[in-house]
This record gives sequence, structure tokens and C-alpha cells, in this order.
Amino acid sequence: MQVVLSVEEMQNIADRLRKEGKRIGFVPTMGYLHEAHLSLVRNVKSRCDRVVVSIFVNPTQFGPGEDFERYPRDEEGDKAKLEREGVDFLFMPGKAEMYPPGYQTYVDVSEVSKGLCGEFRPRHFRGMATIVLKLFNVVKPHVAVFGEKDYQQLMVIKQMVKDLNLNIEIIPGTLMREEDGIAMSSRNTYLSPADRENARRIYRSLQKGKELFDSGERRVSSIVKTVEEVLRSKDGIVVQYVEIRDAETLEKIDRVNGLAVIAIAAMVGSVRLIDNMIIGRSEQ
Amino acid sequence: MQVVLSVEEMQNIADRLRKEGKRIGFVPTMGYLHEAHLSLVRNVKSRCDRVVVSIFVNPTQFGPGEDFERYPRDEEGDKAKLEREGVDFLFMPGKAEMYPPGYQTYVDVSEVSKGLCGEFRPRHFRGMATIVLKLFNVVKPHVAVFGEKDYQQLMVIKQMVKDLNLNIEIIPGTLMREEDGIAMSSRNTYLSPADRENARRIYRSLQKGKELFDSGERRVSSIVKTVEEVLRSKDGIVVQYVEIRDAETLEKIDRVNGLAVIAIAAMVGSVRLIDNMIIGRSEQ
Repeated sequence: MQVVLSVEEMQNIADRLRKEGKRIGFVPTMGYLHEAHLSLVRNVKSRCDRVVVSIFVNPTQFGPGEDFERYPRDEEGDKAKLEREGVDFLFMPGKAEMYPPGYQTYVDVSEVSKGLCGEFRPRHFRGMATIVLKLFNVVKPHVAVFGEKDYQQLMVIKQMVKDLNLNIEIIPGTLMREEDGIAMSSRNTYLSPADRENARRIYRSLQKGKELFDSGERRVSSIVKTVEEVLRSKDGIVVQYVEIRDAETLEKIDRVNGLAVIAIAAMVGSVRLIDNMIIGRSEQ
Repeated sequence: MQVVLSVEEMQNIADRLRKEGKRIGFVPTMGYLHEAHLSLVRNVKSRCDRVVVSIFVNPTQFGPGEDFERYPRDEEGDKAKLEREGVDFLFMPGKAEMYPPGYQTYVDVSEVSKGLCGEFRPRHFRGMATIVLKLFNVVKPHVAVFGEKDYQQLMVIKQMVKDLNLNIEIIPGTLMREEDGIAMSSRNTYLSPADRENARRIYRSLQKGKELFDSGERRVSSIVKTVEEVLRSKDGIVVQYVEIRDAETLEKIDRVNGLAVIAIAAMVGSVRLIDNMIIGRSEQ
């Protein structure tokens, strides 16, 4: 695995690979890699000739008071994991490489970024879309994967790619869970044992919502009420939102007809967690 | 010359040319081509293996009440001119091809877009930068030229390319003038004979400003005053701004030390004209 630190070197590699007719697959990450990241790597590896993973903790997608400074890092562990997966290139730029002095350009995907996490993390999607666009321009991939755990993020990226004519295939990666049901996230490392016990209610609440849907309920208000009841059945979770939206457009709905997503954001102690579940999908 | 209407076809052509190792040069235009456009074509042709010109009157860079609806068009004349210049591909997408229903993604280059035309045409640079970014993603050029007449536009594009890691060389094209000194512009066709006579004062005012600079004056306020006096010496011109800014950064300055640009926007009758002159350039 070749570690690449500079934009210029990565672009030269990408140009060479493309000239050789190689299909480039890309997995952008913020590091502290867990099994869900590695499943994205395997997913993209099966579709491409060369795999590029990036590790960059992007300051512009964190708000004031969020966890940018303490975001967990494990450079050596990450490298070992990616080596084992047969990743070809690890792009790991410094902050000044991506945001030099005088930096001032941002991309907004206006509608899909509204509501849900967009309401609680103003400018988050602007910063995220901007760094992903920059990384796309550096890595020049044919295909990139984004996990379904960050469902709104996935939708923002898909919309940006379509609107900006980016000519990159965006593949959704399945949400993966720990053995106790908690959605895999680098931020789970912040959870105390007590927090962790509380956090398990998030998955249980999604399961309850899905059960109600599977039993025939189609009213969004009724399913949301059930999910919230599970979350609020004990202390320890402060709900930011429970919403059910159209899974293709993220538009608000009153009734579940086609595919929908139950999306949750909640504070568990001082840790902000998000989770979601698709309902109406035939294979579930 | 091959005329290309669809994004997908243009991207396939660009991918093929890049795989063949061809260097792609690009001139984005809004059509109604005049000699200054053709000089941009010649400029880029001398640097590349294949030349792509686009014609697209971009609705998102026009404000309410501006001239989007009446912007002059001459498709057949444009094609004949580009054929004569040996252009390889003319990309001419329809509006729905570039902005399909649900379109919602825009790019902002915040600092360089402020002031000057940014003050009088809110959202103009956002729309312009967005369509240029889209066209870059479709045409995939190695090099693109932008005329110095739209000086702030050129600076916005250069900043965007740098910030978004676009890996495209941006070449400034020399500002060209008609025989009577008026800067070449598709909008000159709007001018009545009386307007045209008044419009000539814009170039004369820039010349007066440059003469003052050449005679040793370095105070911005003094040069601006002289320029404004020429513009206001008769009726028929309503000045929007006369400013002198650093030519590299577009930052405001009090004294001219290095390269600077005298920039003017004015209404001549109902026609908005812009013009500029670089001062402190050794070859001038």
C-alpha cells in the first residue's frame, strides 16, 4: 500500500491509472477504522482495479463545540487494517494541504441538506460536501462508496454528484451493527458502559418501528410515536429527532407507501449518535 | 467540428481523448461570438491537441430583471465562426440537460465574489462558478481560457480551481477592443448609436487613469477621482463603481504598489457595461 500525502502526487497517480484504463474505487473516511469501513473497502474492491482510501478528519464539517479536537485517531492501526484488505493507495493529506490560507470555496446542496441532521448541525453538510468534492477531484474515482448509516450524507453526495455532472458511481454501503445492535461508528469509543447500555435502545426503537410497519401500520405519526416511546422509556437519551422520510428523496411524508427511512439522532450522555432503518425494502 | 448536445456524450468523448493522451483545451461561452471569443479559441488551440467550445446561456448567473431572455443568440453564425477556427467539438446543451428538475447544488467562492460586480449582481458569481464547475466536469479539460474583460470572473474561477483542487490550468485571455475603444462584448449589440458614443468615454476614462498612474500618481483615491470625472463629464453614463484593486487578490488598496486593476461598471442607457485596465504591468 502506497501512502500519499500530497494532492499533486495523488492526482498524478489517478491520471496515470486512468490512462492505463484502470477503474479507480474510492472510500473516503475520517479514520479510526472499524469493520463497517472495511466492508466499504471490500465492496468497492470487488468493483474496481485499484482501491484508494482517504483518511482526513475534515475540520469544516464540525461545528463549534463539536468533537473535532477529540475525534479519535489511530494512524498505525488504520494502516495495518487497510494493508490487510489489499488497499492500493492511502491518501492522507494534512489540513494545510486541503485548506491552505485564503481558502474560500464551498458547495451547498440546498434541499437534501435541510432538516434532520442539517437542523442540528448547521453547515455540517456544506463542509462535508465540499471536502468530498475536493477529494473526488484529487482521487478521480470511477466509483465511490458511502455507508448508509450516514443516510442523509449519502443522499447529499448522490444529489451533488448528479447536479455537478461528476460522472462517479455512488454505491451505498450497508449499515453494520455491533453484536449488541449499536450501529458501528468511530464515535462509539466515546461511550461509557452506562451510555452504551442506553444507546442500545436506539436500535431497539428502530426495530419496534419496523415491527409496527410490518404489522400493517402506514401512518408516519404512529410509527414515530412508538419509536420515541422506546427511546424515552428510560433516562439517558435526549432525542434530537425521530423522523420518517421518503428513502429516495428525503422528502417529508405522512404515510409510508414506497421505501422510507426511519432516522434518529440522539445525545447519549455527551455523545451524539445517529442511526436509521429502511422500511418497505422487500429483502428486509 | 462535432456538435455535442448531451452531457453523457461529451463526457465519453473527454474520457476517450484523455485515454489517448490528448490535451483538451476549453473555451466556455454564452455564444454570439465576436473576435475576442475567437482570440480565446486561438489562444487555447496553441496549447492543446483538441479544442472544445461550449455555448450555453446560463440562467443561474442572471438576476431578476437582467437580460437573460433577450441575451443575443446566433447559433448558425457561431457555428460557422468556430468551424473556421478549427474547433474540434462544440458542446451546446439545452437548459434541461444542465438544470434538470430538482437541481439544487451551487458553489460559492466567498471572498473574491464580494464587492465590484458581486455587489450589483447578487448571486451572479454563484451561478457563474456553478455552471463553470459543471462544464469542467463534463468537458474534463486540461486547460481553459477566460477573458480578462470579466476580470472578477477570471479571479473567481482561478480561486475556485485552486480551492477545489481542479487540476485545470486557467489562462487569462487579453481584453480586446473595438476600433472605437469599446471593450468587445456580446452586449454591445444592445447599444444605440447615442449610447455607443457615450460608452466610448469608459475606455477614455481608463486611459486617463492610467496616464495619471504613469505620471507617478500612486494614490487610489486620486486616480479614481480622475476616472470618475471623465465618466461624468457628460450625461448618459450612470456609474455603478469605479475601483482600483490589487490585480492578484482583488483586495482593496489605498496605494498602487504592484499590479492593480482599474475596474468600472456603468449603465449606458439601459445597457450594463464593464471594463477594466491593468496598471503597473511592465509591458503596457
